[in-house]
Amino acid sequence: MAETRDNGVPQLRDIPIGIDASGTRREFDSMGEVAVPADRYWGAQTERSLHHFDIGGDRMPKAVYHAYGTVKKACALVNAAAGRLPDWKRDAIVRAADETIAGQLDAHYPLYVWQTGSGTQSNMNVNEVIANRAIQLLGGTLGSQHPIGPNDDVNMGQSSNDTFPTAMHIATVEAIDALLVPEVTRLDETIERKAAGWMDVVKIGRTHLEDAVPLTVGQEWSGWAGQIRAALAEIARSRDGLYELAVGGTAVGTGLNAPKGFASEVAATIAELTGKPFVTAPNKFAAQGSLDPMVRASAALRGLAVALMKIANDMRWLASGPRCGLGELILPSNEPGSSIMPGKVNPTQCEAMVMIAIQVIGNDTAVAFAGSQGNFELNAMRPIIINNVLHSARILADGCARFREFSVEGTDLNRPKIASYVEGSVMLVTALSPVIGYQNAAHIAEKAIADGTTLKQAAIGSGLVDEALFDKTIRPLDMVGHGLAGA
Amino acid sequence: MAETRDNGVPQLRDIPIGIDASGTRREFDSMGEVAVPADRYWGAQTERSLHHFDIGGDRMPKAVYHAYGTVKKACALVNAAAGRLPDWKRDAIVRAADETIAGQLDAHYPLYVWQTGSGTQSNMNVNEVIANRAIQLLGGTLGSQHPIGPNDDVNMGQSSNDTFPTAMHIATVEAIDALLVPEVTRLDETIERKAAGWMDVVKIGRTHLEDAVPLTVGQEWSGWAGQIRAALAEIARSRDGLYELAVGGTAVGTGLNAPKGFASEVAATIAELTGKPFVTAPNKFAAQGSLDPMVRASAALRGLAVALMKIANDMRWLASGPRCGLGELILPSNEPGSSIMPGKVNPTQCEAMVMIAIQVIGNDTAVAFAGSQGNFELNAMRPIIINNVLHSARILADGCARFREFSVEGTDLNRPKIASYVEGSVMLVTALSPVIGYQNAAHIAEKAIADGTTLKQAAIGSGLVDEALFDKTIRPLDMVGHGLAGA
Amino acid sequence: MAETRDNGVPQLRDIPIGIDASGTRREFDSMGEVAVPADRYWGAQTERSLHHFDIGGDRMPKAVYHAYGTVKKACALVNAAAGRLPDWKRDAIVRAADETIAGQLDAHYPLYVWQTGSGTQSNMNVNEVIANRAIQLLGGTLGSQHPIGPNDDVNMGQSSNDTFPTAMHIATVEAIDALLVPEVTRLDETIERKAAGWMDVVKIGRTHLEDAVPLTVGQEWSGWAGQIRAALAEIARSRDGLYELAVGGTAVGTGLNAPKGFASEVAATIAELTGKPFVTAPNKFAAQGSLDPMVRASAALRGLAVALMKIANDMRWLASGPRCGLGELILPSNEPGSSIMPGKVNPTQCEAMVMIAIQVIGNDTAVAFAGSQGNFELNAMRPIIINNVLHSARILADGCARFREFSVEGTDLNRPKIASYVEGSVMLVTALSPVIGYQNAAHIAEKAIADGTTLKQAAIGSGLVDEALFDKTIRPLDMVGHGLAGA
Amino acid sequence: MAETRDNGVPQLRDIPIGIDASGTRREFDSMGEVAVPADRYWGAQTERSLHHFDIGGDRMPKAVYHAYGTVKKACALVNAAAGRLPDWKRDAIVRAADETIAGQLDAHYPLYVWQTGSGTQSNMNVNEVIANRAIQLLGGTLGSQHPIGPNDDVNMGQSSNDTFPTAMHIATVEAIDALLVPEVTRLDETIERKAAGWMDVVKIGRTHLEDAVPLTVGQEWSGWAGQIRAALAEIARSRDGLYELAVGGTAVGTGLNAPKGFASEVAATIAELTGKPFVTAPNKFAAQGSLDPMVRASAALRGLAVALMKIANDMRWLASGPRCGLGELILPSNEPGSSIMPGKVNPTQCEAMVMIAIQVIGNDTAVAFAGSQGNFELNAMRPIIINNVLHSARILADGCARFREFSVEGTDLNRPKIASYVEGSVMLVTALSPVIGYQNAAHIAEKAIADGTTLKQAAIGSGLVDEALFDKTIRPLDMVGHGLAGA
Repeated sequence: MAETRDNGVPQLRDIPIGIDASGTRREFDSMGEVAVPADRYWGAQTERSLHHFDIGGDRMPKAVYHAYGTVKKACALVNAAAGRLPDWKRDAIVRAADETIAGQLDAHYPLYVWQTGSGTQSNMNVNEVIANRAIQLLGGTLGSQHPIGPNDDVNMGQSSNDTFPTAMHIATVEAIDALLVPEVTRLDETIERKAAGWMDVVKIGRTHLEDAVPLTVGQEWSGWAGQIRAALAEIARSRDGLYELAVGGTAVGTGLNAPKGFASEVAATIAELTGKPFVTAPNKFAAQGSLDPMVRASAALRGLAVALMKIANDMRWLASGPRCGLGELILPSNEPGSSIMPGKVNPTQCEAMVMIAIQVIGNDTAVAFAGSQGNFELNAMRPIIINNVLHSARILADGCARFREFSVEGTDLNRPKIASYVEGSVMLVTALSPVIGYQNAAHIAEKAIADGTTLKQAAIGSGLVDEALFDKTIRPLDMVGHGLAGA
Repeated sequence: MAETRDNGVPQLRDIPIGIDASGTRREFDSMGEVAVPADRYWGAQTERSLHHFDIGGDRMPKAVYHAYGTVKKACALVNAAAGRLPDWKRDAIVRAADETIAGQLDAHYPLYVWQTGSGTQSNMNVNEVIANRAIQLLGGTLGSQHPIGPNDDVNMGQSSNDTFPTAMHIATVEAIDALLVPEVTRLDETIERKAAGWMDVVKIGRTHLEDAVPLTVGQEWSGWAGQIRAALAEIARSRDGLYELAVGGTAVGTGLNAPKGFASEVAATIAELTGKPFVTAPNKFAAQGSLDPMVRASAALRGLAVALMKIANDMRWLASGPRCGLGELILPSNEPGSSIMPGKVNPTQCEAMVMIAIQVIGNDTAVAFAGSQGNFELNAMRPIIINNVLHSARILADGCARFREFSVEGTDLNRPKIASYVEGSVMLVTALSPVIGYQNAAHIAEKAIADGTTLKQAAIGSGLVDEALFDKTIRPLDMVGHGLAGA
Repeated sequence: MAETRDNGVPQLRDIPIGIDASGTRREFDSMGEVAVPADRYWGAQTERSLHHFDIGGDRMPKAVYHAYGTVKKACALVNAAAGRLPDWKRDAIVRAADETIAGQLDAHYPLYVWQTGSGTQSNMNVNEVIANRAIQLLGGTLGSQHPIGPNDDVNMGQSSNDTFPTAMHIATVEAIDALLVPEVTRLDETIERKAAGWMDVVKIGRTHLEDAVPLTVGQEWSGWAGQIRAALAEIARSRDGLYELAVGGTAVGTGLNAPKGFASEVAATIAELTGKPFVTAPNKFAAQGSLDPMVRASAALRGLAVALMKIANDMRWLASGPRCGLGELILPSNEPGSSIMPGKVNPTQCEAMVMIAIQVIGNDTAVAFAGSQGNFELNAMRPIIINNVLHSARILADGCARFREFSVEGTDLNRPKIASYVEGSVMLVTALSPVIGYQNAAHIAEKAIADGTTLKQAAIGSGLVDEALFDKTIRPLDMVGHGLAGA
Repeated sequence: MAETRDNGVPQLRDIPIGIDASGTRREFDSMGEVAVPADRYWGAQTERSLHHFDIGGDRMPKAVYHAYGTVKKACALVNAAAGRLPDWKRDAIVRAADETIAGQLDAHYPLYVWQTGSGTQSNMNVNEVIANRAIQLLGGTLGSQHPIGPNDDVNMGQSSNDTFPTAMHIATVEAIDALLVPEVTRLDETIERKAAGWMDVVKIGRTHLEDAVPLTVGQEWSGWAGQIRAALAEIARSRDGLYELAVGGTAVGTGLNAPKGFASEVAATIAELTGKPFVTAPNKFAAQGSLDPMVRASAALRGLAVALMKIANDMRWLASGPRCGLGELILPSNEPGSSIMPGKVNPTQCEAMVMIAIQVIGNDTAVAFAGSQGNFELNAMRPIIINNVLHSARILADGCARFREFSVEGTDLNRPKIASYVEGSVMLVTALSPVIGYQNAAHIAEKAIADGTTLKQAAIGSGLVDEALFDKTIRPLDMVGHGLAGA
């Protein structure tokens, strides 16, 4: 039984996390009793879910629980401020919520991704763990739901239907801000630095995989950076929809069992706790019946994947060789590339990045599909959506980090090869086009290719250009325009 | 031969569109001569493309050519202003470009979607048609490339590599502005009007397809409107990336063969001609090597599809019946629904909308995939991307129009059915939860379901609630919260 | 009024297709009268559909109607044989069905793809056109539904629910057999012929885009052929599920209003009419509630797309250049490749093929999604599925034809380039590995690359190999194994 | 140093798995030395991969290593039989391979999914672990690569390029046979048993979600079983392509460094070891340059997902309620459904199954995309493909198991509800259609719906049918046709 102070209020004790017990403990819910591992804080509904949903190895990401901790804390603060929850209950709940936020209770959040589509089981997992941990801190009996009840206290004024998407939004914003943006930014900066360093190295351009007119290595790299920056801006912007929180809508969006103003106050509290501009969603029926902001966030991640795939492909093609490929870039040699071909080195970081990009696109397909499958007051596809979005964010972030660290930073140029392509290419004839007309220029190029001569030989041989004109016109360095960003 | 004025300048004549000839005409390009239909303006390269790419029934959308007309006109104006193109050439090109923009030359733009990935063949189609039409207007000989050359004059300072994505952006913005936004807005307004009209009709909520607590019909509809508005805002915003134009980058982004300032001036001219805030792309290598803004625009269209799928599904489920379904909504009876079951009426507009949504998602998969497949200075997947994006925009716009006109506007309520559900539902017990606790409330609900009684009977039978308390607490109208938008 | 013979039986007259009338004609259905164009055979329900579903440019493929003609004919034959339909009705229906099969009535089948999900409107279109055409042939009054009724006679014993998927299956098998298999086979044969011709041309292998050990050009091409053959076998096999027909299940699979044996007899008749092994579906509820065999057929088409994408990519990369790429293959020059770069030639057929492959993958996404969205006794996603599958089959077939005709057949080798790669490559060191061990061999290769020497120089320099051993071991021709198909 | 027998042959000792050491150990490869954890068997290349590819939480599935154990064992047996590997080396390798197969060395296979696209690092992980374990068993020094070398002995006659796809095929067949087929079969059998038990319970059919003509509950369930059986047959058949193994092709398909006959012999040995009909792939260039059989296997898994999604959706819709939904089925109550709505029970197993289906479809998108991205002699997208395919197989298998165990088996009927729908429906009018014609029947149905009467009242009121005829014609039990499988 809970120890109380003089005023009859149970006292919060400083008990370290952990339950010194073995075997099982009885926990109950409205359907009856269930045995749970005695050293775990979770209760009957978590145990039921573990039993019924033992499917694959996919577990609900811990980041969802960390975010849920913030939701529970904010609700407790608002409930207490409104006098609906005694301060001592608030303090105990907030303490357990803080431990959840910090990841200290991760071992008590074991549920699978493939569970109820509302995420109710994970919400109840949080309610049960926080309740039991609070009970422990207050000296009560685990499993008694007293003096802290998982439904009546921890979940007060809440439903899974409004809090789970709230936790999804918080977790996704956090993944974007803390995980993804920093690593993508670092990759962008590295590429930009490389681009600046090579801004004057003239190289042959390629369109349709075929020789085209020249540009500089720095310009080519600046294009990659431009793609990444635009994708990053889109990801940052996709947070706008995520800042809108469903909490306060409770079961179906009407806010039943939550007091007036609860939605706005909890959102404001979450904003304060996280330092991010969360607000209450303008329409709770849309916020709970759909997961459209998550679908949009997934699309933004996909946009980055699309860009990274192009960049990684370009890099590995430009580095192909060493003797029988394009050979313009020299990537770092991180490991032997073949178990049979000695001395082989492969663009493995590029390959990993390409696979990551494809996985993100596949994940996004699942997200969009699931996003379309809501019914009435609930989209019951939440676990699959949050799992795929966080998965995408994680592998993109880590992938960018390794790609930068182990491939982009150490990439170097094969300058002789780069120069030889510029010299040999026939497409520099393009600069003659405004002088002698497109058709004449075309015939010169065709003849050089057919005869295997240099462009200069064919041009002078045509009688349309003399050496002086040729030399004045065909100057690669003059063909690359006006700076890193192009025309 | 071209007739000239006194000053030796060929004179622009007012000749109606059309070539009064039959059989074939010789046209040439750098590879030699080709016979083309004598009554068509196109030249050798268009004919070559028709011959080599006779694949399926998919033609490059005419909207691309209309947009291309604007590009050619803007370039001619800028070239002429810079003194690179004589005014009389400019006038002839502008006239033919205006006819292209207006769709008057559509019959002369026959090419397939499945062609070169750069869209060069469609650019050349435009160059050839405008050149020959200009030649005709100037009294010259069709196919002579004189006094207007397709490459040297119409394509002056341009490449397909920069102008085709420019035309893609213009055509997509136009489809969004002129086609999609108006129809989606009308649908949104219709739904909002319905929502307002039914804001006080209490109905049962459903989560997990299961009975939940009540909300109003207007609230449910407001959620749909909220989804649409957010999707619409995203589509509008996706234009930001599309406003950035590649034109001026020419072959590889460096602007070779275009004068300094050309990119900005042409973009400004296009902005003036279209009344839309087009600007020059900040990095031409990204703008030509990728089609990322198109991928993002496709994602925005997909976002609308995801929302519409949910809405159309909700509507047809709520209208299911008439006797053995949910039966809350009565959709208009537009046509007999069955060839065998007499008197059957089906939610056919909803079905069409669901299929449209799925097609848009499929199209978007193709767009994202293609968007990832750029190489070096060119993403050679342009035709597939523009075709899918314009297809999606078109069927979404038309689908929203028909859905609104023939289904949403005429939808009515089955008020007795709606009321009977609210009366019968057991989930109103939720309002008792704050009073008697979640577990007690649960047992009342479980008992009512098991015994087939009303909630009231079970509640009073529990001994925890008397009739007065029940009647005070369980009032559906008090359960629906604070307005159309929910909590 | 219908003219009759002496025996009172209306007489079938030989009236050419066409209605000599203008303006509109009244047609009716159970909902009332509708004005239709007087020169069209269709009736009220077709007109209603045209009005309500004016969405985009996508029309139900004509192939569906051709297949539907076979269904209607078979049903009429079986109904007549059972004495349920008089012979003179049968003859009139069969005549109009034959005209439908032959495509002679295509102009009378105008409906959109985006319509009712069951395809009922297209079934009614067929019923109406065949009825009116039969009425015309029998001397009756168009629109009177007499003496041939669209529902009672043409649709006798049928529902859209069983006949539309039947027509889908027939149309898909036909597209596979008549359109796709022949063209894919021709492409395969061309590639195999090329492979055989180049079976002894040794070239460098590439893995991870990096230089690897040699193989022959013929072997590389044989791999492409192997992929195509396997994909083709899968497509052929996917017909197994399509051979199973739903017809006879009528409205919900129970066969209501169809006599016993109807399902089997109609399937047998369709088999006889088409010469293909159609049978009645073993379970009608699966056959009408799902479109799983169509999803599987789409997957088979996608399998071909996946293979073709790899092949087209390989070809264009191997042909990249002419001076700054891999340059092993020389593709035919079909058209100028650039509007700005004179003399440029691009791998445009490969690009078209890659785009086709991506479109087929996108189409397949839509098909699988739609396939999952059936409910109860009907999958109401039929139009989108048949449209995407037939679209994929068509562009694959045409794409293979053009790719073969205009690119593969004319492809040639750049033998000096191919030989120079083999000579220069360091990866031939692999053959030394069994002799001196992997680690020693690796160090030789690494040194050759670092020093820019030949492999031979580095090998001899290592002291581990003398010239005789080197020359005996490093013989490219001995490294390519045992024939076209590899190990 | 290795202890030897009298004949100088090192002796295999029976040392339990495990290395009694702490700190790090030096291992080397061609690039130099690397410190690895002293208690792990892996070597330098595994450690390099761990360092360079620390990306996300996705680890190469252990099933790949188990399969790889079989590959290594088979190669050692064949190499030894050919006299290329001494028996004592063979025995040591086989012992370590057997331990790998049995999963006893799982802790020594730590690599990530996102690594080199060829899977070389995982192959080297296997080579290193088997080599060091064999060295240990032979009394040698870990990390010495003596007397067993990871490349020269364990990898003898092999490349990652041929062995990794071989392991993929074996692992996938194993997952299908041992994991998926049994659980899907059990689910099918359960559904069939239910169908048989309810074959005579007449219920209303639904098409377009709208009331249709009756069928029996057993028939509806038989349709689901029919879908599953067909999907299962397709999965079984997809093994055909997987039975073809690349091993023996070595680096590029030519079999360099493998003796003649090696490919066939190793495949035969693998067949013997696994009891499955593996054979050597007919074309090694296709087998290594593509992963087409894996793409086809993924499509087969997707086919099951498409079917299961329909089935799970049907079940949850039919169980919707309890008071405001369709309410025909009663699913087991496994857990409380809501944290806020007391007594709520949701179709959570169905929801999990729907999410699993969507994930499998998303995974399949990634697989097909990756399958298309091969280049030349290698598809370097292997890790993403095997990870997604095995993931799909696992969650499908587990999902089917839980779905069956916790939902399907305990599902019951709400017979009064089912009966009331049949009584109330108007669509039974269909049976009147052959008697009084479709149009007359339609008008009766329309009038019954408009007036809210029974069908019988409307029918008799029409004057077209008398009570006797009505009662004779409208007999639901006579409308459900000829057995479980329908027409």
